[in-house]
Amino acid sequence: MSPWKAARPDDLVSAIDTPALVLDLDAFERNLQRMADALKGHPVQLRAHAKSHKCPEIARRQIALGAVGLCCQKVSEAAVFVDAGIDDVLLTNQVVGTTKLMHLAQLARRARMGVLVDDPLQVMALADVARSQGVSIDVYVEIDVGGRRCGVMPGAAAARLARLIADHAPLRFAGLQCYHGPAQHKRTLAEREQAIAQASDAARLSRSLIEAEGLKVERITGAGTGTFLLERDSGVFNEIQAGSYIFMDRDYGDNQLGAEDVRFEHALFVRTAVLSRTQPTRAVLDAGLKASSIDSGMPTIWQRPEFKYVKAADDHGVLEVPSTSSLALGDALMLVPGHCDPTVNLYDELVCIRGDRVEAIWPIAARGALL
Amino acid sequence: MSPWKAARPDDLVSAIDTPALVLDLDAFERNLQRMADALKGHPVQLRAHAKSHKCPEIARRQIALGAVGLCCQKVSEAAVFVDAGIDDVLLTNQVVGTTKLMHLAQLARRARMGVLVDDPLQVMALADVARSQGVSIDVYVEIDVGGRRCGVMPGAAAARLARLIADHAPLRFAGLQCYHGPAQHKRTLAEREQAIAQASDAARLSRSLIEAEGLKVERITGAGTGTFLLERDSGVFNEIQAGSYIFMDRDYGDNQLGAEDVRFEHALFVRTAVLSRTQPTRAVLDAGLKASSIDSGMPTIWQRPEFKYVKAADDHGVLEVPSTSSLALGDALMLVPGHCDPTVNLYDELVCIRGDRVEAIWPIAARGALL
Repeated sequence: MSPWKAARPDDLVSAIDTPALVLDLDAFERNLQRMADALKGHPVQLRAHAKSHKCPEIARRQIALGAVGLCCQKVSEAAVFVDAGIDDVLLTNQVVGTTKLMHLAQLARRARMGVLVDDPLQVMALADVARSQGVSIDVYVEIDVGGRRCGVMPGAAAARLARLIADHAPLRFAGLQCYHGPAQHKRTLAEREQAIAQASDAARLSRSLIEAEGLKVERITGAGTGTFLLERDSGVFNEIQAGSYIFMDRDYGDNQLGAEDVRFEHALFVRTAVLSRTQPTRAVLDAGLKASSIDSGMPTIWQRPEFKYVKAADDHGVLEVPSTSSLALGDALMLVPGHCDPTVNLYDELVCIRGDRVEAIWPIAARGALL
Repeated sequence: MSPWKAARPDDLVSAIDTPALVLDLDAFERNLQRMADALKGHPVQLRAHAKSHKCPEIARRQIALGAVGLCCQKVSEAAVFVDAGIDDVLLTNQVVGTTKLMHLAQLARRARMGVLVDDPLQVMALADVARSQGVSIDVYVEIDVGGRRCGVMPGAAAARLARLIADHAPLRFAGLQCYHGPAQHKRTLAEREQAIAQASDAARLSRSLIEAEGLKVERITGAGTGTFLLERDSGVFNEIQAGSYIFMDRDYGDNQLGAEDVRFEHALFVRTAVLSRTQPTRAVLDAGLKASSIDSGMPTIWQRPEFKYVKAADDHGVLEVPSTSSLALGDALMLVPGHCDPTVNLYDELVCIRGDRVEAIWPIAARGALL
């Protein structure tokens, strides 16, 4: 990591070194509140996804506003949050291998831990480690509700796995994971509605077969920033796993919202500066693909729609600008990243600003926690 | 970062936790030697690009085999290597802004530091900081030899900048940066030859005009892993900035080599394991785009051409496999990353293996050094 920091509290925003990952606290806090408001009075709870931020300071604020716990993707990511005092984490993943399972069991001594399964072998391995370590683990059956990634098909296969879990104390059958990933970025509301209607049907069918086994389906969890109102109103989901809503990114911003959809604001930016300006229609920025992940497309330039980020190299971003632009060497711009999660994962710290001042520096403590 | 490590020295390779960044030391050492052999007896020297590895242990081995120094992209990246004892670093970038310039000047007290310019304003700012800090800095004029990114046009503009540098002691006009980025991945040798012939013409023209000013052009530096033999044999370049040759990646592997081209081996891998296996033709890996950068396309599966990595999410990789495959939950595979540089930047450590054992763990000390 860099031997020095991009900024310190009380610095002027204009003095932040570049590139730096910047969180606009006013916009972030409004996003937090909008999510809390959207779920208030509905039979669903927020289990915020921490893979987006990897930051305990943010997790604490989500929980203070009503989140029942966190989702994490990796055992080591979960460990960072448990170390920071979070006591309820669902790993929205299968966990395979004795090393990982042992770490999971050790976390289950200190926090309520949940995990997904989509194979009987995973259940048996979880049962072995839970018994040997004397811990209880919440186990969820992952249903493939349309993502075509992990998960068993809805219905009988889900019921068989639920029964297997229930028969293997100290495992605890906790419910169903019904996350539809591809639905999050379908651009029209009609497409998202169709996808989540199918996901809800899959959840309902699976629940009814599991209840016919005499088992309780305590939680049906899923949803993301792109679709969570649909799961909220589905009558079957009771937990929402949104993560990106706190930051937003260019890709989510490209979704066409319906009249009822919640308008989250861009709160996460990459502050960058012009390092080369040799041609009238070109500027080169000091933020390339190591500063703003391009897996979901290029960033846009905040409040400067006339500038177009057209190419990213490791450490250069090429901008097309109008030939009349006065953009000059050293001028700073704010990128709206194409995809917030992997962009956050490139940084060790969030530079939190309010107005024209740096208010705080928050460690991205689970950055790089891949195991 | 993860609270625990993926491996320790003397572990079996089969025990490495996943995903982990793995360096095959035998292949790596052969790559180091191949580059040294390819330059031996030619009027060019290697200035290895450290943005690929960000690892002092690797830099020391490059210098032990004859590299005259390193290239870095960022001042903070250079600082990590100077702190590790490297005493000659060229920043292959313009450096803009007083904070960055002050850090550069402080490094110039401890190491020979070079930097690029493509604008008179950069020269004046460098001269100011060098004078105020009492240091000398090598300054190179960057020529746009075809990359259409940074750099002045070949010829008169380059000569004017060189004169300006020479007139501003304690700056030292050191030569020309003539790197052709897009040429590195042109798939056919004929395309690469054409691009580097143009780059060499641009370098030659600029040199002759600068020499007509009575200035010495000590170094003409550029080239990458895809084209370095062409620059070596150009009669005008005397420094080679290759970086990826030590690792190779899928994108470089896709270049069609000529009969004379050096065959570097894939030495860098992402070790990953199967976490879900619900469909005969699908497996899901625990390495997604936070474990293997997809900016230059998907990874391939080492020595398993029948498996196709078709989709990367943050922490999942979806693999298409033949329906007859016996690939099972927990099975480990090695990915060949699409692009080595940003993949290395996702990890804190390289797990160095030889045969079936872990030999060493090398810190990726400049990971995330973006400033």
